[in-house]
Amino acid sequence: MTEFAWPQGKVAAAAFTFDVDAESAVLWDASGDWESVGARMSVMSHQAYGPLVGLPRILTLLERHQIASTFFVPGHTADRYPEAIRAVVAAGHEIAHHGYLHEQPTRLSLEGEIDALDRGLAALADVAGVRPVGYRAPMWDLSWRTPALLVERGFLYDSSLMDADHPYELAVGDDHLVEIPIQWALDDWEQYCFLPDVSGSGLIESPRKARELWQLEFDALRGVGGCWVLTNHPFLTGRPSRAAELNDLIGYVAGHDDVWTTSLGEIATHVRALGLPPRSISPPDVPR
Amino acid sequence: MTEFAWPQGKVAAAAFTFDVDAESAVLWDASGDWESVGARMSVMSHQAYGPLVGLPRILTLLERHQIASTFFVPGHTADRYPEAIRAVVAAGHEIAHHGYLHEQPTRLSLEGEIDALDRGLAALADVAGVRPVGYRAPMWDLSWRTPALLVERGFLYDSSLMDADHPYELAVGDDHLVEIPIQWALDDWEQYCFLPDVSGSGLIESPRKARELWQLEFDALRGVGGCWVLTNHPFLTGRPSRAAELNDLIGYVAGHDDVWTTSLGEIATHVRALGLPPRSISPPDVPR
Amino acid sequence: MTEFAWPQGKVAAAAFTFDVDAESAVLWDASGDWESVGARMSVMSHQAYGPLVGLPRILTLLERHQIASTFFVPGHTADRYPEAIRAVVAAGHEIAHHGYLHEQPTRLSLEGEIDALDRGLAALADVAGVRPVGYRAPMWDLSWRTPALLVERGFLYDSSLMDADHPYELAVGDDHLVEIPIQWALDDWEQYCFLPDVSGSGLIESPRKARELWQLEFDALRGVGGCWVLTNHPFLTGRPSRAAELNDLIGYVAGHDDVWTTSLGEIATHVRALGLPPRSISPPDVPR
Amino acid sequence: MTEFAWPQGKVAAAAFTFDVDAESAVLWDASGDWESVGARMSVMSHQAYGPLVGLPRILTLLERHQIASTFFVPGHTADRYPEAIRAVVAAGHEIAHHGYLHEQPTRLSLEGEIDALDRGLAALADVAGVRPVGYRAPMWDLSWRTPALLVERGFLYDSSLMDADHPYELAVGDDHLVEIPIQWALDDWEQYCFLPDVSGSGLIESPRKARELWQLEFDALRGVGGCWVLTNHPFLTGRPSRAAELNDLIGYVAGHDDVWTTSLGEIATHVRALGLPPRSISPPDVPR
Repeated sequence: MTEFAWPQGKVAAAAFTFDVDAESAVLWDASGDWESVGARMSVMSHQAYGPLVGLPRILTLLERHQIASTFFVPGHTADRYPEAIRAVVAAGHEIAHHGYLHEQPTRLSLEGEIDALDRGLAALADVAGVRPVGYRAPMWDLSWRTPALLVERGFLYDSSLMDADHPYELAVGDDHLVEIPIQWALDDWEQYCFLPDVSGSGLIESPRKARELWQLEFDALRGVGGCWVLTNHPFLTGRPSRAAELNDLIGYVAGHDDVWTTSLGEIATHVRALGLPPRSISPPDVPR
Repeated sequence: MTEFAWPQGKVAAAAFTFDVDAESAVLWDASGDWESVGARMSVMSHQAYGPLVGLPRILTLLERHQIASTFFVPGHTADRYPEAIRAVVAAGHEIAHHGYLHEQPTRLSLEGEIDALDRGLAALADVAGVRPVGYRAPMWDLSWRTPALLVERGFLYDSSLMDADHPYELAVGDDHLVEIPIQWALDDWEQYCFLPDVSGSGLIESPRKARELWQLEFDALRGVGGCWVLTNHPFLTGRPSRAAELNDLIGYVAGHDDVWTTSLGEIATHVRALGLPPRSISPPDVPR
Repeated sequence: MTEFAWPQGKVAAAAFTFDVDAESAVLWDASGDWESVGARMSVMSHQAYGPLVGLPRILTLLERHQIASTFFVPGHTADRYPEAIRAVVAAGHEIAHHGYLHEQPTRLSLEGEIDALDRGLAALADVAGVRPVGYRAPMWDLSWRTPALLVERGFLYDSSLMDADHPYELAVGDDHLVEIPIQWALDDWEQYCFLPDVSGSGLIESPRKARELWQLEFDALRGVGGCWVLTNHPFLTGRPSRAAELNDLIGYVAGHDDVWTTSLGEIATHVRALGLPPRSISPPDVPR
Repeated sequence: MTEFAWPQGKVAAAAFTFDVDAESAVLWDASGDWESVGARMSVMSHQAYGPLVGLPRILTLLERHQIASTFFVPGHTADRYPEAIRAVVAAGHEIAHHGYLHEQPTRLSLEGEIDALDRGLAALADVAGVRPVGYRAPMWDLSWRTPALLVERGFLYDSSLMDADHPYELAVGDDHLVEIPIQWALDDWEQYCFLPDVSGSGLIESPRKARELWQLEFDALRGVGGCWVLTNHPFLTGRPSRAAELNDLIGYVAGHDDVWTTSLGEIATHVRALGLPPRSISPPDVPR
């Protein structure tokens, strides 16, 4: 990837991204059993904390630091909390696609994938007047079919793969898609999420530990000229002490003048302009 | 929630609450298979530590700091340990409702929910002469039906939802119920509880880590003027080193003159007097 | 428990105990499927580390500090590693009963419990010429039947319950048994054990964290005049860095002149001599 | 093991080893259901990070410190990433056997074990021109049959057992095999790996914690004159902050002149030259 270069004066990039899952992430179930979780009022309220409390708090943090971010919004969240999503747009942040009901692509048929994409696009258009250029697979679980569906719909980038420290052009047939990689260690779900019988083993870490983990990876990715993409969920990191730690981390990251802290859309636009040769990825052969 | 205000001179509130589950929390089983856990004498003794040892130790701590607390007592605990529960009342603390056998509301029929509520009320009346005004769902798992059942029975407040930093009035039909929110990170179960084949993944944290987690959230909730509600279980936090750490944390919290450290009943009474407009919450629509 | 007193000059007691499970703890299976785990040579070698390497290392530590300890030895371990067990006896430590194949009492019929007890006794007699006075249930999972079986066989004490900070006399029909309580937080299994598809979630803690946890509880149990009983497994804590941390902890504990650091047999003998009134424990009623 | 001695001037040994699993470790499934994981493009990309990014980074680290290491390479990885594996050879490191598709030996028939061994050998020969002398069982799960199969194929050593601090000669019929033991606490999988529905409970530790764990065990194994064998996976420890911590740890270990830091092949050759008496291990009897 010898042609890769960050903008003038920058040695690396950083993005604070937010998956605004709200109820969708726990409601969706591959087996279609959405009733049992939906019947749990406490569980629903745990998820609602995101758009109701966490999201406004995070918008305030970002404004304080003058950081442009990317919010991945399932269509269902937009339909249920339209004002919250419009506030994100009004604050100048990027809205990107995250399924309709947070459907895991690899558990869907082709028709199911198409349906989730198109319903998500419709919801973001209706609620926020937005046509997103970016996509992140719910559960970070892209299928091999998804890239072509994204290209057909004019998406500029995806952010669901994990095989690089830098963005790249992913070959999709004769076309291509910018890929901005992520990694599980830069996600707040593993550090904080616990919902009995729904998610998590019971582990709930201190925000101090999460910040150490994320900041060490920032320092090291900066050292190799990579792209640090943190993913937080408003229903988790929107809690006061986690948001306070995030605030300090934003200050730390933004205090590095040689790092380009921006939205994924800006990064993808930059990458596209580099004219990188697309890279092909194929599924592994499995013997016999 | 612009009308919300804490009492004169206070910028936030804090409550140390205790779920006195004893055996009930592990005996209850949605499938009705209560024999297999009940046959485990060691498991039963692990839970009995709560009322026998942990609870008296916690009462001593609270008296030392002159803190009024709320104890959520399943009816089964009251029936099995009447003297322990009467000691809580005698010490001036609030007794609140926590089911009869710690039944998870979302796994019950309407009749089952009614039965658990009424048997819990009967046990608290018989054993301690108490008619509780507060309720917390076992497993923190309120059903959408529960609030109306609470209003019908004259409850003032519930403390089982997770969608706010402050208490609020929850609309229930034409009536309303004070809601004092909780969160999983302010519970000791995830930090300490391990019972093979019953609960926990094996993780047992140091009391130092738990205290860091809880104190950071106290500092941050105070910063936003919220209501910090810690939930501890006497069978867990009643162990000596955890109680010692709790003692230090109580000292820390109570050392903040601008924070109102009190019981949930006192907080709910204050909230009710504010005359806040009730807030409606409805279950999310699930497409198709 | 007003009559309780430690020996002259001592305010609390401490015991370093070892469950010498070796292969038995992973071989035993309630369903009788012992082949699948036994076929795993690596898993067997992980357990064999205990008697082969960990146990001699621990004996050296104990000798250095001149500490008398209690070793709970399943009969199967004695039969498979007779020299290792004889070395424990030769070093002057107590051997106690821990089942034959580490059978979980609550998963056995009455006949199965009797068989496990009697075969364990026979193995300890044959291999080490020992008639143990102490018992600890495998998996720390005593059944309500076990105490009577122990009394019938002349045992002085059990160490499998979790409902007190101090030893006590457990009423068993018209007779009684000294009970020396344990707790999950004072066990090394939760901190260190991982065997894929056999035990553990993958968590492996640093010995520093384990020591902090155990030392905080020592300090606090000393503060309340209790009995601190640490349980370590030679296949886990026998590893060099864990043994090094244990060595430091033994030094810390033994450095407290006001704490009686000794074997469980010595503690039980002391407790028996106090003539405490036996305490009855009955299984909880389960409604309907 | 009185005859055991390290080379002149050395009191202990250390090896940094790498299991280059890539996709194979998550594709292989005892039930033959390889499609469901293979269909997950994000999961595949998570594994591909190893050969594509992590492995080159690790080679750079090793070169900086002038350390010779051992890389356990499944045949499937060699077939899919031949250039990556040739780069390991070109850098002078040892390539060893790790199955073909990372097949867990204890879940295979005898024929399946033979097939996995021979296909792995063929792939390493074809791709890298290598005939390995060392073997490590995928999933660290040797069967009791495997040692004989290794001897028949002329292997010098295995590194899959866990019952010693030092290497030894394992008796295999009338022949023998050098065994270089490993342990779960010296593996990065438990500290870092999370793949939803594939592996891990959600725990992701900070590289600081992993390093503390590994360094404490290095210090202690050095103290007892043992052999410290660290196992890292390029798809995990190849991430920048983990690699940075590994870099510091290599510096720490290599800074001990009295420790022989080298490859497992070198260690095995040394052990073989000692002419140690082979040690027999037999499966435990299971009663009835």
